[in-house]
Amino acid sequence: MSANGSPTGQQPTATYDSAFLKACRREPVPHTPVWFMRQAGRSLPEYRKVREGVPMLESCMRPELVTEITLQPVRRHNVDAAIYFSDIVVPLKAIGLDLDIKPGVGPVVEQPVRTRADLARLRDLTPEDVSYVTEAIGLLTRELGGTPLIGFAGAPFTLASYLVEGGPSRTYENAKAMMYGDPQLWADLLDRLADITAAFLKVQIEAGASAVQLFDSWVGALAPADYRKSVMSASAKVFDAVAGYGVPRIHFGVGTGELLGLMGEAGADVVGVDWRVPLDEAVRRVGPGRALQGNLDPTVLFTDKDTVEARAGEVLDAAAGLEGHVFNLGHGVMPNTDPDALTRLVEYVHTRTAR
Amino acid sequence: MSANGSPTGQQPTATYDSAFLKACRREPVPHTPVWFMRQAGRSLPEYRKVREGVPMLESCMRPELVTEITLQPVRRHNVDAAIYFSDIVVPLKAIGLDLDIKPGVGPVVEQPVRTRADLARLRDLTPEDVSYVTEAIGLLTRELGGTPLIGFAGAPFTLASYLVEGGPSRTYENAKAMMYGDPQLWADLLDRLADITAAFLKVQIEAGASAVQLFDSWVGALAPADYRKSVMSASAKVFDAVAGYGVPRIHFGVGTGELLGLMGEAGADVVGVDWRVPLDEAVRRVGPGRALQGNLDPTVLFTDKDTVEARAGEVLDAAAGLEGHVFNLGHGVMPNTDPDALTRLVEYVHTRTAR
Repeated sequence: MSANGSPTGQQPTATYDSAFLKACRREPVPHTPVWFMRQAGRSLPEYRKVREGVPMLESCMRPELVTEITLQPVRRHNVDAAIYFSDIVVPLKAIGLDLDIKPGVGPVVEQPVRTRADLARLRDLTPEDVSYVTEAIGLLTRELGGTPLIGFAGAPFTLASYLVEGGPSRTYENAKAMMYGDPQLWADLLDRLADITAAFLKVQIEAGASAVQLFDSWVGALAPADYRKSVMSASAKVFDAVAGYGVPRIHFGVGTGELLGLMGEAGADVVGVDWRVPLDEAVRRVGPGRALQGNLDPTVLFTDKDTVEARAGEVLDAAAGLEGHVFNLGHGVMPNTDPDALTRLVEYVHTRTAR
Repeated sequence: MSANGSPTGQQPTATYDSAFLKACRREPVPHTPVWFMRQAGRSLPEYRKVREGVPMLESCMRPELVTEITLQPVRRHNVDAAIYFSDIVVPLKAIGLDLDIKPGVGPVVEQPVRTRADLARLRDLTPEDVSYVTEAIGLLTRELGGTPLIGFAGAPFTLASYLVEGGPSRTYENAKAMMYGDPQLWADLLDRLADITAAFLKVQIEAGASAVQLFDSWVGALAPADYRKSVMSASAKVFDAVAGYGVPRIHFGVGTGELLGLMGEAGADVVGVDWRVPLDEAVRRVGPGRALQGNLDPTVLFTDKDTVEARAGEVLDAAAGLEGHVFNLGHGVMPNTDPDALTRLVEYVHTRTAR
C-alpha cells in the first residue's frame, strides 16, 4: 500500500476515502470531519491513568503506550482522525540532546544552542533513532482501520525557540536576538532542524501516517517580514521533503493571523487557523488551492451545550464557502476540558453537516 | 492651568507644545517623540536599587518613590514623555480587594470574581482612595517641567481577566467562559470596572497628567466579533468619561492586530501597535484621524547597535505616511535590556527625524 492510503494501482482504501482526507484534498465530503489538537492527552481520565508514574518523554518511546494514548480519543469521541501521540522535542531527544520535559514547566534543554559550535550537536536523525515510532505506527494502523493517522512534528522555528532559550519562553528573546543579530547562524540552525524534522516525518509516513501536521506553535511571535526572511525557507524545506508521498500536509501555529498566507505558501495543503481570525477572513488571506482547519476557541468548551453549539455553528457558517474544511479547535484541548463536551461537539458537527 | 497643559485662555505651555503631545494631536513635530512602555522599571539598576526590600504594591503607594521611579528613565534616556509608575491592579487594591503582586508570578487575587454576588465587592473608586496618586503627580509635574506625564490604567477586559482568573493566565479560560456563557454578568462586571478605571484616570488627569494610556494588555486573546460584542462598550465608556479634559487618549494591547480598528473606534486618539503589524499596514486598519504609537520589537534591543538602528529605521520608514507617530517599542521593555541601548535608540530616533 502506498503512504497516502491508496493501494498502488488499485481502488482507494477506506482510509483514502475518509472524510478527513477528502476534506484535506478539497473533495466533496459526507460530513465535515473533526479532530482536536491535543485530543490525546490530559483532558482524558484514561490518559491520566495510563500515564501514572511514566515521565512524558518515556511515554513517547513506548510503542504500546503511544498506541493506547493515540487510540483513546478515537474510541471515546468518534473523531475523524487520530493524531500520533508525541512531543515536539522527541526528535531532538532522539539525536542525543540532553533535554527533558519537566512537569508544569515544559521542555528544558540542558545546554542551550547559542553558538556555531553548538550546531555540531545537531546530527541527522535516522529511522533507527526512532524505531519506537515505526513500531507504534505499525500497531496503530492495524487498530485504526479506516481512520487516518496524522503524523506529528514541530517546525524549525518552534524547535529553535526551545533550543536557543533552553526552555519555554513568553518572549523568545534569545532566539529572536540570534535571528535578528546573527542571521547566518540562525539560518544554519533552522536548516539543520528542517532536515531533522523532515526525517522524522518521513519515518511516520513510511510507517503508515496518511497526513502530517507541522506545528509551528510559537511562530506567531514574528512579524510577516521576519517570517518571510528568516523562517519560511526552513519550513518549506520540510514540506518539500515529504511532498513526494502525496499525503496532506497541515501547518498550524497559534496567533498567526498575520502569517496565514505565508504559511500556506511555505507548502501547506491545509492551513490551521486559531480562533482570532474568522474562517471567511482566513480564506481571503490564504487564497485558493488550500483547505483550512479550525477554529473554535477552546475556552468555549467551558460553557453549556447550547453555547458550544451556537459557537460551533458560527464556525461552520464562516466555513460555508471553503473548498475544504477540517473542523478543529483554534488551539489545543485545555487540560480541564470536560471530555463529554468534546464528544458532544463531534456529534453536533457531524449531524449538522451530514450531506 | 487646564488639564491638557494649556493655560486657560493663555499661550500654550512648553508641555502642550512638546513633540509628544503634538504627535498625539497629529500636528507637525520638530522630531518624532519617543518613550518606552515599562521604561520605568526593571531594566534600570537605579530602579532595582530604590525598590530593594519594597514590595511592588507598596512602591506604587509611596509618592516620593513613585516620583523617583517615574523620573529615572526621563533623566537617563532623554525620552519625550514620562509614564506614571503604577500597576494595573492598583485601583482594585485601592477599593479594598484582597490582592497582591507576587514576585515572579504577578497579581494574585485572593477571592476571584465568579458570581453576581462578587460584583458587590467592586465599589466605586474615590480620589481619597488614591490620594498618593494625586500627591505623586503633584511632585512629578513640578520636576518634569515641559516633559509630559502619561497617566496609566488597565482596561476593563484586562482587569477582569485578573479578577476572574484569580491571577495571571495564558488562556483566560475562566474569564472567557464567563464572557461566552454568562454575557450579562460579564457585561455588568466590565461596566463596574469601566467606572473604576475612569475614576482612576480622572484623578491622574486632574492632578496634572497631560495624556493617558489605557492598557488592554491581554485583549488580543479575543476574536474581533467578541471584542465588539463584549468589550468595546466598556473601553469606550472609559474613554468617553475622560474626553472632556482634552488630553490625548492612547490605547494598547499586545497581539491586537485583528482589533486595531475597533480599539481606535472605542475612542482612542492614539492606537498602540505591537511589532507584528507594520505601521503602514496598521494605519490602513485604524483609518484616518488617529495617531499611531510603536512598534520596534523589544527583542531587537538584544542585538548590536547597527542592527537596532537598521530595525528602528524600518519602523520610521513604515511610519513615514502617518499623520502622527509616537515611537515606542511594540511591547514593554524587557527586564534584561541594556539601558544604554535604550538611550542610544532615543538619540537615533531624534537625530534621524530632526526637522
